[in-house]
Amino acid sequence: MFDAQLDPTGHILTLTGPDGPQRFHAMWLRDNAWDADTRAPGNGQRLVALRDIPADTKMTKVAVSDDRITVSFSPEGKTITYEAGWLSANAYDRPAPAQKGWTSAEIEPWDARLMGSVPVGDFARMTQDDAALGDWLALVNRYGFGKLENGPIEDGALFKVVDLFGYVRETNYGRKFEVRTEVNPTNLAFTGLGLQAHTDNPYRDPVPSVQVLYCLESSAAGGENMVVDGFAAALRLRDEYPDYFTALSSYCARFEYAGEDGVCLQSRRPMIELAPDGELIAVRFNNRSLAAVTDVPFDKMQIYYAAYRRLGEIIDDPAMEVTFRLEPGEAFVVDNTRVLHARKAYSGAGTRWLQGCYSDKDGLRSTYAAMRRADMKEAAE
Amino acid sequence: MFDAQLDPTGHILTLTGPDGPQRFHAMWLRDNAWDADTRAPGNGQRLVALRDIPADTKMTKVAVSDDRITVSFSPEGKTITYEAGWLSANAYDRPAPAQKGWTSAEIEPWDARLMGSVPVGDFARMTQDDAALGDWLALVNRYGFGKLENGPIEDGALFKVVDLFGYVRETNYGRKFEVRTEVNPTNLAFTGLGLQAHTDNPYRDPVPSVQVLYCLESSAAGGENMVVDGFAAALRLRDEYPDYFTALSSYCARFEYAGEDGVCLQSRRPMIELAPDGELIAVRFNNRSLAAVTDVPFDKMQIYYAAYRRLGEIIDDPAMEVTFRLEPGEAFVVDNTRVLHARKAYSGAGTRWLQGCYSDKDGLRSTYAAMRRADMKEAAE
Repeated sequence: MFDAQLDPTGHILTLTGPDGPQRFHAMWLRDNAWDADTRAPGNGQRLVALRDIPADTKMTKVAVSDDRITVSFSPEGKTITYEAGWLSANAYDRPAPAQKGWTSAEIEPWDARLMGSVPVGDFARMTQDDAALGDWLALVNRYGFGKLENGPIEDGALFKVVDLFGYVRETNYGRKFEVRTEVNPTNLAFTGLGLQAHTDNPYRDPVPSVQVLYCLESSAAGGENMVVDGFAAALRLRDEYPDYFTALSSYCARFEYAGEDGVCLQSRRPMIELAPDGELIAVRFNNRSLAAVTDVPFDKMQIYYAAYRRLGEIIDDPAMEVTFRLEPGEAFVVDNTRVLHARKAYSGAGTRWLQGCYSDKDGLRSTYAAMRRADMKEAAE
Repeated sequence: MFDAQLDPTGHILTLTGPDGPQRFHAMWLRDNAWDADTRAPGNGQRLVALRDIPADTKMTKVAVSDDRITVSFSPEGKTITYEAGWLSANAYDRPAPAQKGWTSAEIEPWDARLMGSVPVGDFARMTQDDAALGDWLALVNRYGFGKLENGPIEDGALFKVVDLFGYVRETNYGRKFEVRTEVNPTNLAFTGLGLQAHTDNPYRDPVPSVQVLYCLESSAAGGENMVVDGFAAALRLRDEYPDYFTALSSYCARFEYAGEDGVCLQSRRPMIELAPDGELIAVRFNNRSLAAVTDVPFDKMQIYYAAYRRLGEIIDDPAMEVTFRLEPGEAFVVDNTRVLHARKAYSGAGTRWLQGCYSDKDGLRSTYAAMRRADMKEAAE
């Protein structure tokens, strides 16, 4: 049961429900009305701008009936009904996050102990069964990566993976790129060298937020894939050395790649990126493409380099890494704003052929959110 | 003429040149060496990680010869030569930016006074003449938008515009979308309504950072295009009401679009986005897709809404807007992280047909930077 009270000025409504009292402002309530004049019934887009809502808007009356709250606004003389559950779910009357580096409850940082339960999905099943796809997307959302098994062994099969959730982000590397040993490589990824765990293309802004690596041949010795949770690494850095976390999140690094004619990709972004309210939103880490860092003040450069070194040590710590081998017809999808990937060195004997491409999280998150919303609707009906 | 001195600890080198003294740390210098063991000669990628450089690295000797500085490092016993000009260009011994909202010197905020000199390029010429393309990209870089004239009048011509500098970002709207009046539109953009100036798709993360709108038919009355510099608007807000600028840059807004089956795009980003060191890097403004803002603490919500209202008033101020009409075969390209666009209402009589698509700034900025670098090389030879 809900109770609703207006303050004497008509600017604040206090809604008291099972979770205790929550205050709402008149302007926020009016702007978030869902009547057909405010929001287009079909697509939900707002039909009015804030300029259409008087600056002196206040509430003149409130009534509660079951789980609905009806509010009258002056000077428009408009009456709007809200679902109490919607108001509770969107309440903002709560303390601000206390510590920098907080993450959404949907995200679970992990380390080597995840090894026994690597998130995995069956490609063939996912193409036919939405529930299987939804389960796998939930894992990718939670852990920042997911393996796929039982896919076709054919050139371009990786595009079928992207089709599950989004769209290919084409770049100067093409719609896809081949990862195998090359003579005179333009990029160290195309050699047999082991690579330190890294995020891809930090020199690109916006960075490609999803990467797909798809295995077509795998008979060379070595070349195992390895992933490290960049969020877990950043949080460990914060807990061990708060000043280091502050240094890497307060100043921008610079990244550059100019290894091909006509290409000069440059970015200026922090290695640990926080939203303005301290949410941990991205990690960039790539020794190969780090350019000269010139945006750290002189008296902070020493601690900046110490922090960068320590973050690298954490990333290199076997206690952080999860390894797995990709066989032909297997792939992995990685949130390139969070999870670092690497491969162990491999020898020239035998072959190792992967195809890679980029995509973006907007599509992946949208597909997953739309599935969850449809499930909730079904459950409610 | 340059002079270089080591401090007694061997950790700091002071380089004195035409611009005065600049200090550099031993670790920074070592990490930024350009010898063939540190950086791959072909593609410039760094071959070592920070873990390969000893933590107790210091300098034991420095020598200056003409414009080259040669430094010896222990304990590696490595000797590296630097160009003094490169060191000066990458010096970091300078005060941190004083005011939030600073922008790179390459960016020029503008208002309605730009009307007489709208940045424009000749499409046909640009496809054949790199210098013409470079000039136009410089304008887009500086002003955040550019018009194109003299293009072909054919379905899909907008892709030829994207080919000039980058790649199409495909989304759930397709590789391209049609902007003309529709019956039962899924999006208000596909009606004849006038739209408040906005950035596109703020509900997408990463947001598409470039938009192309290409005109194929234009005989309806009205429908002029209008652009507003979101950076200029944000800076005006900062100068008028610093607290408002702080509110919109310190808290995340939420945006959502769920107007189609299977689509539920959601983002949590500030309307005014700053880098951690205060650089103004993005503006998001779109009344249609703003969702309930729930990340502003209760006691800041009133000033947040006042700030949002004032930013809207600035954006609506005719003193900020530049308008132009697109004729068939004309297009405009806009930096969707900076410049807002809008269109005036148009009537049903006659036709108005535009095609739109998204792309990203990484390609645009890379193409421009590579051209500039090639020019500089040529000039130096």
